[in-house]
Amino acid sequence: MSIIQSYKVTVQWGDCDPYGIVFYPNFYKWMDSAQWSYFNKIKQPITKLEKIYGIVGLPLVHTEANYISACYREDILKIETRLIKITKSTIKLAHVIKRKNIEVCSGSETRIWAKNIDGNIVSSPIPNEVRKVFNIHLSE
Amino acid sequence: MSIIQSYKVTVQWGDCDPYGIVFYPNFYKWMDSAQWSYFNKIKQPITKLEKIYGIVGLPLVHTEANYISACYREDILKIETRLIKITKSTIKLAHVIKRKNIEVCSGSETRIWAKNIDGNIVSSPIPNEVRKVFNIHLSE
Amino acid sequence: MSIIQSYKVTVQWGDCDPYGIVFYPNFYKWMDSAQWSYFNKIKQPITKLEKIYGIVGLPLVHTEANYISACYREDILKIETRLIKITKSTIKLAHVIKRKNIEVCSGSETRIWAKNIDGNIVSSPIPNEVRKVFNIHLSE
Amino acid sequence: MSIIQSYKVTVQWGDCDPYGIVFYPNFYKWMDSAQWSYFNKIKQPITKLEKIYGIVGLPLVHTEANYISACYREDILKIETRLIKITKSTIKLAHVIKRKNIEVCSGSETRIWAKNIDGNIVSSPIPNEVRKVFNIHLSE
Repeated sequence: MSIIQSYKVTVQWGDCDPYGIVFYPNFYKWMDSAQWSYFNKIKQPITKLEKIYGIVGLPLVHTEANYISACYREDILKIETRLIKITKSTIKLAHVIKRKNIEVCSGSETRIWAKNIDGNIVSSPIPNEVRKVFNIHLSE
Repeated sequence: MSIIQSYKVTVQWGDCDPYGIVFYPNFYKWMDSAQWSYFNKIKQPITKLEKIYGIVGLPLVHTEANYISACYREDILKIETRLIKITKSTIKLAHVIKRKNIEVCSGSETRIWAKNIDGNIVSSPIPNEVRKVFNIHLSE
Repeated sequence: MSIIQSYKVTVQWGDCDPYGIVFYPNFYKWMDSAQWSYFNKIKQPITKLEKIYGIVGLPLVHTEANYISACYREDILKIETRLIKITKSTIKLAHVIKRKNIEVCSGSETRIWAKNIDGNIVSSPIPNEVRKVFNIHLSE
Repeated sequence: MSIIQSYKVTVQWGDCDPYGIVFYPNFYKWMDSAQWSYFNKIKQPITKLEKIYGIVGLPLVHTEANYISACYREDILKIETRLIKITKSTIKLAHVIKRKNIEVCSGSETRIWAKNIDGNIVSSPIPNEVRKVFNIHLSE
């Protein structure tokens, strides 16, 4: 199992700018939502990982996006998410946003496994048992 | 001291909808920001009240707004905030949003003095010493 | 036909504030989305009304909301919308937001039938044929 | 003239997520605002370019950001913007976001010179006179 349809959204009036098209930070909002949903779907909800491993979510180090086609109110967008890279203490998710099966935007989020140590967020090695689960879903 | 210019904002592209005017929930975002600023300016920052009295912010029970004139990108908006009502456990703030000294929107926020008791947010009487300070700023 | 379930939303991480609860302007975003959906569902999409009658959407004159219970990430919210008042040139929509059939927020939007006359947005009487359709859906 | 302090923002409550830190799409909102401001400051406001050259803004093809330090409510952020690349029909802006002169986030936006031809947004060569002006501000 490598690709997961993690999120579906209908573009709303308030998501669009004066050109009538999606204001681009909203694509990142949807990628963030897709990320929460992705971890639910691989049965590793972030809130569970927080409880077990004492992490503080999966903070971001980098995001990027390519904009292929403008999106409009009432467009139905589906986001497919894959886990494409795992390092000692980071993971990278790739998101493809499609409208009617045609890619309109793609992006990625690189996130760290991090703990709050004395008030500082510090990267920490991903535990082996988590790495094993993540590796099952890795899709290079 | 009754009216406080609590917040100033320049309307951005991303605040506007496909008609080119401010998408109305943003007026509430700015009223919320004005509220945080208001309590700072009367020297009762909410974070200080939280520490001293164990409240969980000032949760909302009601908000409303009247829209008088459409606002556009690059408009400079100034928000004037007054404390217009104090009850046993609620306060009501009135916000007037002006562009070039002309009112373009007005609104209010009714908020409760509330504590988190066993996981539930429960309204609680405003302590006398806080009520005294609030009364100084009351502007009916 | 009086009440319409016009919108369904799952609360996302990015909708929530540092208390972990929905940042209140988002309730208005969802009421706005519910409004667009409402007019679709009564087969009077706003874009159609714009084309036929030359209106510029249905600009707002007033909104309000009551907050009953805090909402959290992953809450599934359903919005029921009713048309509760029609005047010469305004309509008022009432929105009830429910979580598991329990009301968590209610609000209203008062909107005007308006035309763009020489660059100014001016209220205009609702045409009789539109009023007739709206009256069918009126739910006092 | 190569670096321009194009935008200043104070982080608001509503910009922060349940961890109490800035929800990352907001950094992009601020970069977009910085971009509008940048073109104003080099005396090439986008609305002027639209009128003279018939472009439809400067649509995005790519954005990215690196997150260095978490930002919190009341942080004052200053964005410095540079024009770092010009091709036949694209420009690339680099944004550095600083808090107390320390970089907390950096990002870029690649935008195209585009016209609306028969309803399609099509990239178009940047006119020579515009290219000359942009070249003055180029900062590699």
